[in-house]
Amino acid sequence: MEDAKHGLHTHFEVPIVKITTEDGRTGVGYTYTGGFGGESIAKLIDKELKHILLGKDASCIESLWDQMNWGIHYVARGGLASFAIAACDIALWDLRAKKADEPLYKLLGGHSNKVKCYGGAIDLNFPLEKLLANNQKYLDMGLKAVKIKLGQPTLAEDIERIKAVRELIGPDVVFMVDANMSWSVEKAIKAAKLMAPYNILFLEEPTIPEDYEGYARITQEGHIAVAGGENLRTPIEFMHMIQYGHVDFPQPDASNCGGITGWLKVAALTQVHNLSVSTHGMQELHVSLLAAMPNAGYLEMHSFPIDQYTTRPLVIDPEDGHAVAPEIPGTGVIFDWDKLAPHRMPF
Amino acid sequence: MEDAKHGLHTHFEVPIVKITTEDGRTGVGYTYTGGFGGESIAKLIDKELKHILLGKDASCIESLWDQMNWGIHYVARGGLASFAIAACDIALWDLRAKKADEPLYKLLGGHSNKVKCYGGAIDLNFPLEKLLANNQKYLDMGLKAVKIKLGQPTLAEDIERIKAVRELIGPDVVFMVDANMSWSVEKAIKAAKLMAPYNILFLEEPTIPEDYEGYARITQEGHIAVAGGENLRTPIEFMHMIQYGHVDFPQPDASNCGGITGWLKVAALTQVHNLSVSTHGMQELHVSLLAAMPNAGYLEMHSFPIDQYTTRPLVIDPEDGHAVAPEIPGTGVIFDWDKLAPHRMPF
Repeated sequence: MEDAKHGLHTHFEVPIVKITTEDGRTGVGYTYTGGFGGESIAKLIDKELKHILLGKDASCIESLWDQMNWGIHYVARGGLASFAIAACDIALWDLRAKKADEPLYKLLGGHSNKVKCYGGAIDLNFPLEKLLANNQKYLDMGLKAVKIKLGQPTLAEDIERIKAVRELIGPDVVFMVDANMSWSVEKAIKAAKLMAPYNILFLEEPTIPEDYEGYARITQEGHIAVAGGENLRTPIEFMHMIQYGHVDFPQPDASNCGGITGWLKVAALTQVHNLSVSTHGMQELHVSLLAAMPNAGYLEMHSFPIDQYTTRPLVIDPEDGHAVAPEIPGTGVIFDWDKLAPHRMPF
Repeated sequence: MEDAKHGLHTHFEVPIVKITTEDGRTGVGYTYTGGFGGESIAKLIDKELKHILLGKDASCIESLWDQMNWGIHYVARGGLASFAIAACDIALWDLRAKKADEPLYKLLGGHSNKVKCYGGAIDLNFPLEKLLANNQKYLDMGLKAVKIKLGQPTLAEDIERIKAVRELIGPDVVFMVDANMSWSVEKAIKAAKLMAPYNILFLEEPTIPEDYEGYARITQEGHIAVAGGENLRTPIEFMHMIQYGHVDFPQPDASNCGGITGWLKVAALTQVHNLSVSTHGMQELHVSLLAAMPNAGYLEMHSFPIDQYTTRPLVIDPEDGHAVAPEIPGTGVIFDWDKLAPHRMPF
């Protein structure tokens, strides 16, 4: 799998945290990486965050989140630490939902038990035939929305792929594209104009995440909606993007912006700005977060093969193509430890 | 040692990187922490950055810096990774300066071999008598500038300490204060007004580093110069602070903003904005960076006891109280490995 800026993905890493409370309950949390940094995340949890959490009342998640963030703030404040905090925080939310005997989507408000979903592969290096076959697979699953990667050597090649996919999926399927930060602002504006005939819902990460004003220019001058958020690591970074720039489809990822607590702060921010909230990756968990939200946008069904290692692969309702949240108490993400065992890293 | 937001410091950590080139040269780089995260930084270097650097041409530092930043961008983009990249980058600069047979300050332009310097302890929990004795020690060393920590339970206590220190040092010694992010904007404005009689050069980190507009308000409404930067982790974060807010004394720290390469990018940013550049911590290295700069502000002489573990304790010129850059080829920071040996962490 390849994208325009992160390059080849040969494997992914899943640092996992188990928290056990005195009453015998266990919560499981985790994060992801694209193949780099997982051991450093695990070390940060084991050497620092663990000591902040041990002996504390697991019910007080928002306070513990604050304690974790400030406890390692000097070396942290976003970045890699947001992944480590995420793994711990998600375990705490698993405990909270289990103690409440509620599935996560209800504990968070339960606006619905379903959410719109699109298929998005890391497909930049797929030959056209494979690209089309992969998107046909999404349609066969019942999905009503798809996304492809952009960033080919020339814009003409990108547009050719967009044209071919639009012809495959027909006029009614929702279609998004993702440049993975690889373009300059002027190139993104040019690209946006070239893709106008193909009814693109949003252009994701056209340029680097810090270029807030660049995102605003791309939308205004390219006449296209922009999405972003997978490379923002704190709620404040989302606020800056909205305040100093522009984003139509914020896409916080609980695995990399401080867990469910961080994600909920971003979701609240989208609500007060009259924006929808979408997600990046981690669909097996995000389905419960988005289903709960009154302003849910789109769930990304990512191509990391997590479903092979859990007891409940993502459920798509074939009627409407929406993803369905699990109904069991907790996050609903239960790992198959036997299948994970051969991939366990020494620690 | 204690400050208002990071709390107690019981020890510090110094992840060290040695890079050896085929021609037999060795460069040494390092970073610091306030006691947390050092092992995670070391793991990131050992498992990820090492593989980006091995076999590459050590001369091409700016390209390697870019490769390190983008190679781990998804889990990084600032945060903890900026410390890990710093340790590697400083080792590369040590190699570059040794190969050029130049002391670092000359290799970087050599505007001077000296820079203004202030003594700053992590002294929030010092009783008044100890606070005064410590500042007297700085005066005895010949320093012409001092800084103290603020953030006592009441502003009245902070002002009392400011008054006592100003009385001790007299009217001509430069005096700075540092609130370590502990205040709200309105409290910082109130504090700034209360300290007006004491001729304070700058108020450092009055509030959280992301509140760019808050820094601007504190300056404008409190009529005080503000300093900050020790909690900004990338050159772009400094740009955002300048662009969206305000800072009079930017204080990049090579150990936490991507090494000398990151620091130089911030220094260039200060130059084009007609600002001075100062530093936080790491005085044994920063003395060479600041001495080189035509727009040098102040070197902070921090209270981490690094001088016990190097062969050249920081040199202060007793005539003018300026810190003097080392003249030997390389960074001039040479560790005493025998003294470090008992503190070596298993890895």
